Amino acid sequence: MIGIIIGTNRKEAVSKQVAAYYEKLLAKKQQSTLLIDLKDMPDNMITSGLYDQAGKSEQFQKRLQEKVDQCQKFIVVVPEYNGSFPGVLKVFIDGLKFPDSVKSKKCALVGVSDGVQGGVLAMSHLTDIFNYLGMHVLALKPKLSRISQHFDGRNFSNPLYAQLIEDQVDGLITY
Amino acid sequence: MIGIIIGTNRKEAVSKQVAAYYEKLLAKKQQSTLLIDLKDMPDNMITSGLYDQAGKSEQFQKRLQEKVDQCQKFIVVVPEYNGSFPGVLKVFIDGLKFPDSVKSKKCALVGVSDGVQGGVLAMSHLTDIFNYLGMHVLALKPKLSRISQHFDGRNFSNPLYAQLIEDQVDGLITY
Amino acid sequence: MIGIIIGTNRKEAVSKQVAAYYEKLLAKKQQSTLLIDLKDMPDNMITSGLYDQAGKSEQFQKRLQEKVDQCQKFIVVVPEYNGSFPGVLKVFIDGLKFPDSVKSKKCALVGVSDGVQGGVLAMSHLTDIFNYLGMHVLALKPKLSRISQHFDGRNFSNPLYAQLIEDQVDGLITY
Amino acid sequence: MIGIIIGTNRKEAVSKQVAAYYEKLLAKKQQSTLLIDLKDMPDNMITSGLYDQAGKSEQFQKRLQEKVDQCQKFIVVVPEYNGSFPGVLKVFIDGLKFPDSVKSKKCALVGVSDGVQGGVLAMSHLTDIFNYLGMHVLALKPKLSRISQHFDGRNFSNPLYAQLIEDQVDGLITY
Repeated sequence: MIGIIIGTNRKEAVSKQVAAYYEKLLAKKQQSTLLIDLKDMPDNMITSGLYDQAGKSEQFQKRLQEKVDQCQKFIVVVPEYNGSFPGVLKVFIDGLKFPDSVKSKKCALVGVSDGVQGGVLAMSHLTDIFNYLGMHVLALKPKLSRISQHFDGRNFSNPLYAQLIEDQVDGLITY
Repeated sequence: MIGIIIGTNRKEAVSKQVAAYYEKLLAKKQQSTLLIDLKDMPDNMITSGLYDQAGKSEQFQKRLQEKVDQCQKFIVVVPEYNGSFPGVLKVFIDGLKFPDSVKSKKCALVGVSDGVQGGVLAMSHLTDIFNYLGMHVLALKPKLSRISQHFDGRNFSNPLYAQLIEDQVDGLITY
Repeated sequence: MIGIIIGTNRKEAVSKQVAAYYEKLLAKKQQSTLLIDLKDMPDNMITSGLYDQAGKSEQFQKRLQEKVDQCQKFIVVVPEYNGSFPGVLKVFIDGLKFPDSVKSKKCALVGVSDGVQGGVLAMSHLTDIFNYLGMHVLALKPKLSRISQHFDGRNFSNPLYAQLIEDQVDGLITY
Repeated sequence: MIGIIIGTNRKEAVSKQVAAYYEKLLAKKQQSTLLIDLKDMPDNMITSGLYDQAGKSEQFQKRLQEKVDQCQKFIVVVPEYNGSFPGVLKVFIDGLKFPDSVKSKKCALVGVSDGVQGGVLAMSHLTDIFNYLGMHVLALKPKLSRISQHFDGRNFSNPLYAQLIEDQVDGLITY
């Protein structure tokens, strides 16, 4: 089972649409997927779900932790925000059961930005974190910069982006 | 005015005690300080204070944004958490008014960990983020590893740590 | 075939002894290895082996490139130097044939330092570089800090270090 | 005195032209500069100028170390190469007298690439290294991506690039 993590809780996030694109692509390749949406974190996650409270929020357990536990691999859609990834993505990671949630599992990262960077620093930081937690990160990390010019919410007009994603998904399946 | 940011909202955090140490040291050096405590973020910060809601939480404005606006320099106490800094620290940054909150200001980072790393990756990631937002970061970033062995909650038994902090504070004052 | 790269050309480098330790351990596990020693780079590597000269130094081809080409996996022994890895390690990488030398291959990194960091930033930087070049990096990256206290040149007195290396080698074999 | 470091020894490097652009701009602002060109490293730098040989190469001393010693601030032109900066730039740093060469000095970084990244990871890595060595890095680090489209070797057709460089130079002068 491959989990597709939407790396933000922002409403109307393009990351959600990119996640849906991966979902369809993985379905075509006969892969089962689970969507893991940070919007499902409890509103009071920062006081109810971290540190000594980790694992105690029923909402977090049901809607997020249990899905993570079912997956051996992940696609993480990483929107660039303030020079890295959104803080809520790290809050989500900090709320997961340690260390079983991601240890010895495998993931692939994709960066999304309106600007020119495509989340390159965000993915570098996240690689450090996931490696620290024992999760392997696929080398190929597409940087989907200027996303709104190349993606209409359903399909990529930029064939390079579509190809990179296809290569990445194939890489993750055999990783 | 120098803001001292406690980089976690965890109760009983040693970072809070380290922040108090800096507060006393800066007072001795005739510097005015403001304590900026992430525990003052609203419980529902991740839905009430980010993205299109940024700046709309009265609690965040009163207890955090207004203090940040008064400071030209910052000490950021950075606890290591899951291979980087706590997600809530980035949530706090993501909730600040952009770009005036930190742009062209100056800060000094200090890493705190129970383990051996002293927050070195956390401070590297944070330097990337603050530089992206236009804030200068002092080169000297003490790594207070194995903090509980070297700090009793009030004073450092390790003279190297005390010296590094003294040097850093002097560096920030003239930075 | 697993290549073991000694990440420095310094004489008497402890990294060379660490590489020999890996060599023996891999032999015990019935793995074939090739030692790749940066001391084999030509003295004038920075003018004879880079950019438009890449691939033209016979010495580099015979002693380094051909070995790299035979390996599908690598152990890279990474000494910490000036806050990252030695410049000569990147010179070696810059001199390799692009992109076949490392693309789609797999590696494991181990950091070595006399100080307390164990090469954590060095390995973070190197992960960025290898991922960029298409090589996967094993999540487990032991940080052998204060190496001279824990390693006599042949064996580790620190059982944690020995265990981490054993786990890493097993991880790389099945990676 | 402001040193302008050309971060590569590649012949015909665009970084050399970018360095010349900074030289002219700083002259207009009545700033004295010294050009520090990595092409001046001895051919056998990796055996003659590092580790226990550091400081012993007369050529390195005369053409590079002495210039570095005269400067209190630096512009570092950082070409992107294999996902970071060229190995020779770190070799140059590794060959400098430690720690006086850069400690407590200040620098500004500018990334140059033919591709879309503009050296963002290269500058992140370099910031880690310079901070470790005690040198402050200006927050503003222009990323001159797709340089050949925006720079004719003398002037920038892209007014954003010219403006960023102007802002950066003004920032360094008062840093």
